[in-house]
Amino acid sequence: MQLLEALNWRYATKKMNGQPVPQEKVDQILEAAQLAPTSSGLQPFKIIVITNPGLKSKIQPIAMNQSQVVDGSHLLVFAAWDNYTAERIEEVFTHTAAERGVPASTFDDYCNRLKGMYLSRSAERNFEHAARQAYLSFGLAIAAAAELQVDATPMEGFDNAALDELLELPQQGLKSVTLLPLGYRDTENDWLVNQKKVRTPKSVFLSQIA
Amino acid sequence: MQLLEALNWRYATKKMNGQPVPQEKVDQILEAAQLAPTSSGLQPFKIIVITNPGLKSKIQPIAMNQSQVVDGSHLLVFAAWDNYTAERIEEVFTHTAAERGVPASTFDDYCNRLKGMYLSRSAERNFEHAARQAYLSFGLAIAAAAELQVDATPMEGFDNAALDELLELPQQGLKSVTLLPLGYRDTENDWLVNQKKVRTPKSVFLSQIA
Repeated sequence: MQLLEALNWRYATKKMNGQPVPQEKVDQILEAAQLAPTSSGLQPFKIIVITNPGLKSKIQPIAMNQSQVVDGSHLLVFAAWDNYTAERIEEVFTHTAAERGVPASTFDDYCNRLKGMYLSRSAERNFEHAARQAYLSFGLAIAAAAELQVDATPMEGFDNAALDELLELPQQGLKSVTLLPLGYRDTENDWLVNQKKVRTPKSVFLSQIA
Repeated sequence: MQLLEALNWRYATKKMNGQPVPQEKVDQILEAAQLAPTSSGLQPFKIIVITNPGLKSKIQPIAMNQSQVVDGSHLLVFAAWDNYTAERIEEVFTHTAAERGVPASTFDDYCNRLKGMYLSRSAERNFEHAARQAYLSFGLAIAAAAELQVDATPMEGFDNAALDELLELPQQGLKSVTLLPLGYRDTENDWLVNQKKVRTPKSVFLSQIA
């Protein structure tokens, strides 16, 4: 199974060699991330694709000086909606109706139910919900990269507030949740490359109720 | 690219036909979920695999009476740690050291840093962090199912507290986050099967900083 082979091939690359990832591969990785299912199809997050060397250099110290931020050719920033709003929810269903060639009113009841649910909740709770959706997409981007034999390093270790400010995310109603540098492993200099991949034993990770 | 084909093939199946998914395919889906990268490799969640018809029938009313809960042959429950604890963190690195054939003390400093970070945070914050990791794995399970042409329906619409009580999750230090019934689409009776898949336009979903 190709996905399992890819997931066994990948690892959290600690040292990248600076070789750039072809744009067509990056586009496929982004396509996989965009195809992620999300709660009610709202896709409450964005991906910011950074190739600018100066900006990557500014991000590195915000990200615990991790070298992959600058050694990867593309840095993906997953940023979730800071809250659900009526406008954001309506925009999604206006687009869906247009794409399916049905009247916008088709989704009115559903849209109103969602507004009733989300708009009564705190921004914090709604952001956490949006962040979970972003993580699902993040997983698909990681899987897509692995299938293309592109290395990627899932990163949570950065100063979210500092990155948000640098990228002017609050002005867009967004908050950064994860980083994903894309590049190629430096097999000579990556201490992790030959370490055995370890996962929690199935006896602990899984339980069966038959 | 196989993953993109699979992600375009899948959809949130609304009606399943009751045909059982072969166990070897379920095992591959669980393997993909288990291979998900997680923060510091802690894998702070479990998957409960339910095939018991009586139990699935008890879960259906807790899950907004969604028929896939009983029409799918396997119901996966993703349940995240309710908190990070010293014991849970230590168990992971004791296992990792054993698997890599290095002294348990190898990870002492790293383990202590993680304890310093997580144990000072609220259970709520730690649970939210664990839930995000579970969503990444959830995404890989969905992708694996699609690659195997197994239908799956990502579900958040259920009464978490009621399900936790039914499955005795609090006693295990777990809280349910998502459901994933596995089965096969009933193409005759699923209203969604022929609807166009719609995603946020790239102009909105992506931004580039070159």
